[in-house]
Amino acid sequence: MRTVFPSPEVTPGHRPPLSARRKTSCEPIFSTQTANSLAMIIITRPDATEEQIQHIVSRIADWGLRAEVSRGEMRVVIGVIGAEDKIRQKPLGAFPGVESVMPVLKPYKLVSYEFRGTASRVKVGDVVVGSKEVVIMAGPCSVESEDQILSIAQSIRDSGAKILRGGAFKPRIGLQLLAEARRESGLPIITEVMDTKDLELVAEYADCLQIGARNMQNFSLLREVGRTQLPVMLKRGMAASIKDLLMSAEYILSEGNFNVLLCERGIRTFETMTRNTLDLNAVPVLKAETHLPVVVDPTHGIGIRDFVPAMALAAVAAGADSIMIEVHNAPEFAKSDGEQSLLPKDFADLVRRVRCVAEAVGRAV
Amino acid sequence: MRTVFPSPEVTPGHRPPLSARRKTSCEPIFSTQTANSLAMIIITRPDATEEQIQHIVSRIADWGLRAEVSRGEMRVVIGVIGAEDKIRQKPLGAFPGVESVMPVLKPYKLVSYEFRGTASRVKVGDVVVGSKEVVIMAGPCSVESEDQILSIAQSIRDSGAKILRGGAFKPRIGLQLLAEARRESGLPIITEVMDTKDLELVAEYADCLQIGARNMQNFSLLREVGRTQLPVMLKRGMAASIKDLLMSAEYILSEGNFNVLLCERGIRTFETMTRNTLDLNAVPVLKAETHLPVVVDPTHGIGIRDFVPAMALAAVAAGADSIMIEVHNAPEFAKSDGEQSLLPKDFADLVRRVRCVAEAVGRAV
Amino acid sequence: MRTVFPSPEVTPGHRPPLSARRKTSCEPIFSTQTANSLAMIIITRPDATEEQIQHIVSRIADWGLRAEVSRGEMRVVIGVIGAEDKIRQKPLGAFPGVESVMPVLKPYKLVSYEFRGTASRVKVGDVVVGSKEVVIMAGPCSVESEDQILSIAQSIRDSGAKILRGGAFKPRIGLQLLAEARRESGLPIITEVMDTKDLELVAEYADCLQIGARNMQNFSLLREVGRTQLPVMLKRGMAASIKDLLMSAEYILSEGNFNVLLCERGIRTFETMTRNTLDLNAVPVLKAETHLPVVVDPTHGIGIRDFVPAMALAAVAAGADSIMIEVHNAPEFAKSDGEQSLLPKDFADLVRRVRCVAEAVGRAV
Amino acid sequence: MRTVFPSPEVTPGHRPPLSARRKTSCEPIFSTQTANSLAMIIITRPDATEEQIQHIVSRIADWGLRAEVSRGEMRVVIGVIGAEDKIRQKPLGAFPGVESVMPVLKPYKLVSYEFRGTASRVKVGDVVVGSKEVVIMAGPCSVESEDQILSIAQSIRDSGAKILRGGAFKPRIGLQLLAEARRESGLPIITEVMDTKDLELVAEYADCLQIGARNMQNFSLLREVGRTQLPVMLKRGMAASIKDLLMSAEYILSEGNFNVLLCERGIRTFETMTRNTLDLNAVPVLKAETHLPVVVDPTHGIGIRDFVPAMALAAVAAGADSIMIEVHNAPEFAKSDGEQSLLPKDFADLVRRVRCVAEAVGRAV
Repeated sequence: MRTVFPSPEVTPGHRPPLSARRKTSCEPIFSTQTANSLAMIIITRPDATEEQIQHIVSRIADWGLRAEVSRGEMRVVIGVIGAEDKIRQKPLGAFPGVESVMPVLKPYKLVSYEFRGTASRVKVGDVVVGSKEVVIMAGPCSVESEDQILSIAQSIRDSGAKILRGGAFKPRIGLQLLAEARRESGLPIITEVMDTKDLELVAEYADCLQIGARNMQNFSLLREVGRTQLPVMLKRGMAASIKDLLMSAEYILSEGNFNVLLCERGIRTFETMTRNTLDLNAVPVLKAETHLPVVVDPTHGIGIRDFVPAMALAAVAAGADSIMIEVHNAPEFAKSDGEQSLLPKDFADLVRRVRCVAEAVGRAV
Repeated sequence: MRTVFPSPEVTPGHRPPLSARRKTSCEPIFSTQTANSLAMIIITRPDATEEQIQHIVSRIADWGLRAEVSRGEMRVVIGVIGAEDKIRQKPLGAFPGVESVMPVLKPYKLVSYEFRGTASRVKVGDVVVGSKEVVIMAGPCSVESEDQILSIAQSIRDSGAKILRGGAFKPRIGLQLLAEARRESGLPIITEVMDTKDLELVAEYADCLQIGARNMQNFSLLREVGRTQLPVMLKRGMAASIKDLLMSAEYILSEGNFNVLLCERGIRTFETMTRNTLDLNAVPVLKAETHLPVVVDPTHGIGIRDFVPAMALAAVAAGADSIMIEVHNAPEFAKSDGEQSLLPKDFADLVRRVRCVAEAVGRAV
Repeated sequence: MRTVFPSPEVTPGHRPPLSARRKTSCEPIFSTQTANSLAMIIITRPDATEEQIQHIVSRIADWGLRAEVSRGEMRVVIGVIGAEDKIRQKPLGAFPGVESVMPVLKPYKLVSYEFRGTASRVKVGDVVVGSKEVVIMAGPCSVESEDQILSIAQSIRDSGAKILRGGAFKPRIGLQLLAEARRESGLPIITEVMDTKDLELVAEYADCLQIGARNMQNFSLLREVGRTQLPVMLKRGMAASIKDLLMSAEYILSEGNFNVLLCERGIRTFETMTRNTLDLNAVPVLKAETHLPVVVDPTHGIGIRDFVPAMALAAVAAGADSIMIEVHNAPEFAKSDGEQSLLPKDFADLVRRVRCVAEAVGRAV
Repeated sequence: MRTVFPSPEVTPGHRPPLSARRKTSCEPIFSTQTANSLAMIIITRPDATEEQIQHIVSRIADWGLRAEVSRGEMRVVIGVIGAEDKIRQKPLGAFPGVESVMPVLKPYKLVSYEFRGTASRVKVGDVVVGSKEVVIMAGPCSVESEDQILSIAQSIRDSGAKILRGGAFKPRIGLQLLAEARRESGLPIITEVMDTKDLELVAEYADCLQIGARNMQNFSLLREVGRTQLPVMLKRGMAASIKDLLMSAEYILSEGNFNVLLCERGIRTFETMTRNTLDLNAVPVLKAETHLPVVVDPTHGIGIRDFVPAMALAAVAAGADSIMIEVHNAPEFAKSDGEQSLLPKDFADLVRRVRCVAEAVGRAV
């Protein structure tokens, strides 16, 4: 068996098992999986009656699906064969006599590595994410003034960044300043869209849309960015499992937009010495599970300026295709996130170190 | 010192200390606190120089704030006096020589118990939430048909529910069916608004707007519901601390809408035997921290039908002003959440038991 | 289907599915399950070769187990039939071609509700835990002086407590003072044993041994208390799932000691406003999963004195068989935990309220 | 300000603020801090009376400490000056009128970076951990036979490992086999001690004692290993914060044993796709907070064989002084942990890659 090394050429040799417990929920369920295959396993309770088992089997048949029954001493296992999307909508766990219901097929299809069989590359402007090159995105948390954004853009480009990030909290003005910075620096821009009603405006300017962690499960927003062909960077929510992240991405792909980047940016745990717990474990797991490129945001992940560089290097060593770093020319005066932004000179130093680590794992900057 | 018992007459005798660590973030900061008081404490590092300390003090003065310096053997403590909203925007932790910055004022004001000094009551239709009566909300996860919603509405009303809940996933049709169920049953209705663009439509029909857990930090949605005068039930996000929930509620109140209910519905933890971890600890904490009424949703909280009743009773014993229960007449056929909905007859049984517990803690149903 | 109400007469109608993902670990595995039944399900990867599948099947046969193969379109499902204890020791996930391995049998047997088919009662001195009566345990965090422990013991007995708790941090002296308090008050005593080398001494004095949360997975200690016939109260660890708690209890029972109480005392989550997150969801889950009585410790669970009463009432409403409350006559002077202990008069008030709630759910104090 | 890069020469430029909320507990408190300095800040509630404030101030004076009072508009801030160890034992939060109590001094001293002002090096046999060289520890989860341990020891030594690990679950036999493997391979050995009663035996054989994650807060075991002069590797508990880990290490140092290695091995979070969440954020935080060397155990941290290499590389990039890898020559037949152990040839490949990354961050293997 081959191990998952962070080189982009390696075919992942392992796709880890999904948490097998089915949890129903109010979220509307998308339907993209159509394979006619073993989709679900039902395990009955020790005290399930023959009548209950037959009720389940006949209900499965009513739905146009097929049941395969295997009998153990205490429990009966019923395999359900048929289109995954049909099965998902059935409240199998609500039947009398059922102890547990375990999905065999994954709850996503288009994003899975098997679906493409090879890693995807996503173009942001002219920059390719997902190739041998580790792409560095950088910029301030928020666009504050023309001077600020132009000076930061030029400085990070000179240091080696390839994409400019920046939040436009007053959208119209912020987006125009970002566009100006793009003209001056030549860097494509990524910026957040926070609400469906802003999408049209943001899409006019951005080279890549960012969906923030708080909107990772904002399904109407996911659907609408799925209808554009713009690259989308989807950030993992603070309480989102890796599976949740992939299911949210599936929403975007299922609308036809395959230009998706997944971004690990820290989850919420009991640890309080760091702002969040940047979960680098997600990097090799995602590289094995999905063909989509993986970005890591150590700035929000650890949230303390002095520790950002170490986590940036670790992200690259773990196999990230891209890292995103907040840079501010005057953190003391920053409107937000001053405490976690790097100074331009520290960023330049970080890029030099990132380059060394990237080369050590067979990549480049 | 008086203890916090779940009777609504008791004045909370304790407001627990806030997590004292300031974490900056990209989220825009609202500004409602204006008191000219000790707002922040800065603690310097053991190796901070006198120059660094003077730099901090003079910068504080530049901002129109006042610094009080106390010197210890290893560290210096600087109290910052002035309007909280001004101070919040300053990246104090970004200054050289600073070890930590601790807020003294809470990051919310309008929602705090001190602000009103008494518990609030919120009217949903003619039903008062926050009085001696524990209000029971019930209904299906989603509105599926006229028959379904009318039959459930009548059944839960006969059992003792006072408010009808139901998700309208095809909004226009679902809302009309809910309105019809209101006419027939006399129960006011609560339903979710998921996107700013749906607000006008939903507000036309609903007696109470629900903000779902996934939207708890959707600040544009919070602001817009804050501009209506409709009651709003704000559900706690899966990764949201109690403080985060209160800060989100502050957004709504600061736009002028004080008709807010807070809803505990389970947080995400490592435990996998339950769907979420319903955090009943939040009930007495919220009753002490805020004047707003507290609702508990055990259905989504524990997520397993047979365990919903125990958690509903516990919620009332802990002091909840209201509980929300999913009820479905045919869980096997439910489009969503069939595995956690109660049958109407089990709901009727639950109401009887809730009444006993409510009376045991000095309340009524 | 019957719902799980907190009355002790109700037969649990549901045993929730276990987290289905097998996680190997260094912990030695106990072997008490011998049923010759469907014990494990292996699901192969889409790219598994026929050779790999045959390799798995023949290895299973080598082990004296039986394999049942069902073929889907993409994956093959192999049921493994045989003694659970044999299968557990096999690294099934290490075979090439395996995607996931799901246990069907639970990882515990003696503690499971099915094993006895009825709730167990455990006697501590003359006090029965697990009957209709909700048993109240109370006392100080630690035994500090003769005066302190005698006065608290008498006061809590007069208020209605049935068992005296107290930590003996200087074991020999503390245990003698506890024994004296037992003589004076008539209350049986429960105290913690922290190390195998102290067991003999503690067992000489205690009516019930307590295993603290930090020792929940101290397997040598579990084994040794399992060899006594003294009642043991096992506290859930801060990071222990409900399944972990049950597996630890299985260790004690498998040594022959069935006198075990399980105690929920709060888990660690991201919430910082409370000391821990008391997980009352564990109460109905445990009542359905196991025959062992369930104790709740709201003092350590929420960790803030004013909120202890609300959580104590909620615990009883959720179905706890017993609650444990810290009481101190002079919290300002307490050597430890002063901030969460109740005053004797507040404890007396709490017992009155607990009695009302207990009666409301069909129990007594 | 200098950033924390993973090179051992860099002096950490930042010590992140401690979680400021004081949580009392039953754990005995150690007393090593004696500085006469600002140790604690008390913040009063808005409704605190002058009488309550005077009561606090006079009680502080009774204890031989000094109070500095600063008055705000709503709250009063009282700084407590004096020996940290005295103050810690006082239940300041139990006083009427107190809203919160925030420690200024850290709850540990001997382990803190400031205490030594330079990084420590710990010798295991002849191998130095904490120097420029990244030390690789490797070996099986448990010692199974003479053949097994001798063959693995030789193979990992040839690949570049410097220390042999192995669990001796049947202590006497396992330890003798480890000693034989040391003689044959020349590698010093590290093995776990699980109970105070085994310490003498294990100490006879081991070059380094391992305290497992489950025993991280087994204070009697910590104290006893603190009385030896053997190197001790202390693993972080699954629910232990970084601060908790440091406080446990302080126990060992305060008994006189400074030869301590800290090991990050994964914490428990809601994520289920990985066995634990290896928290690499802990690496730069620990390098700044403490002078003790930092080890990372990616095998237990992520728990899935194919993902171990990526996390091992990331650990080195983040600044770890050592990594520990499980290796087994026949994972299919391993008694435990077969699913996460590397094959010897994959381990050899990993060491080559680790060497590249180590050099990229200015270190060596």
